[in-house]
Amino acid sequence: MKLEEETLGKEIVFEGRLIRVEVEDVRLPDHSHSKREIVRHPGAVAVIAHDENGRLVLVRQYRKALGKVIYEIPAGKKETGEESLVTAQRELEEETGYTASEWKEITSFYTSPGFADECIELYEAKGLTLSQGLQTDEDEFLEVVHVTLEEANELQKEKKIHDAKTAYALLYLANR
Amino acid sequence: MKLEEETLGKEIVFEGRLIRVEVEDVRLPDHSHSKREIVRHPGAVAVIAHDENGRLVLVRQYRKALGKVIYEIPAGKKETGEESLVTAQRELEEETGYTASEWKEITSFYTSPGFADECIELYEAKGLTLSQGLQTDEDEFLEVVHVTLEEANELQKEKKIHDAKTAYALLYLANR
Repeated sequence: MKLEEETLGKEIVFEGRLIRVEVEDVRLPDHSHSKREIVRHPGAVAVIAHDENGRLVLVRQYRKALGKVIYEIPAGKKETGEESLVTAQRELEEETGYTASEWKEITSFYTSPGFADECIELYEAKGLTLSQGLQTDEDEFLEVVHVTLEEANELQKEKKIHDAKTAYALLYLANR
Repeated sequence: MKLEEETLGKEIVFEGRLIRVEVEDVRLPDHSHSKREIVRHPGAVAVIAHDENGRLVLVRQYRKALGKVIYEIPAGKKETGEESLVTAQRELEEETGYTASEWKEITSFYTSPGFADECIELYEAKGLTLSQGLQTDEDEFLEVVHVTLEEANELQKEKKIHDAKTAYALLYLANR
């Protein structure tokens, strides 16, 4: 069964600092026409980081879209042309102050394939050394916390951990 | 540490059929000002559905944002005011033709807290009965496939399963 949709034209309806929004005119498999609303995002990396005591390093951050503070694994968006591992190392250091001696690529996933092209690449980092103070972006305010897996699962029950990448990370760790 | 950001004003920069995009002026914790780009989405449900042979029911679908066909667990967006379980039952039936006798709520997660408020509520369904032909939306083309967990893991290795909710579902099933 042919499922592909052909793009006949597109309009950029919003160009922001983080995202670009496009409306594409498409030809559907039955040759009828429709429109697709697509959020273009540079992609992101996220890091499961284990500290020297075997605890998980999380960042506590206010998310305006959600209207609440949540605990997440460190993550950040890719700069243009940046290799994913470099992004992972940069974001871990900027958000938590840690560098890591051991890096492992876990998986990648698109967060919202129905309307966005954001892909998150997930890494695991061990051998953490505190290298410096935080160097967050000027509009980024966060707090670093260290939790056991049990404490993280408790935070998830309370919906203080409540995003896909961190939920995936906890299941990944539980599964080993 | 105070992390909350106060909204000082907002502009709706795009109002589509599926998403609405807002730019909010915010006051940051240090009292400086910034802007947040936020995609408003009605929220969605997704269903881990087990057929009578213990296989997983997936839908094969072209995702314009990704430019490729992927296999996902059945999912769909909530209608205004619709209870999540009702959405789950409706979407499973519309996308796969199945009704289920046993429903269990698994978890929920925000897919992209950095720029979107989409929350996915994940259900598990058993006791499947084929009730009817598919009743997909007029611009929705998909193919129903039944796979074992091993086949699903293989599809994931090939990046034919490549989205967060389905990746989470596979880890969830592997973890039992």
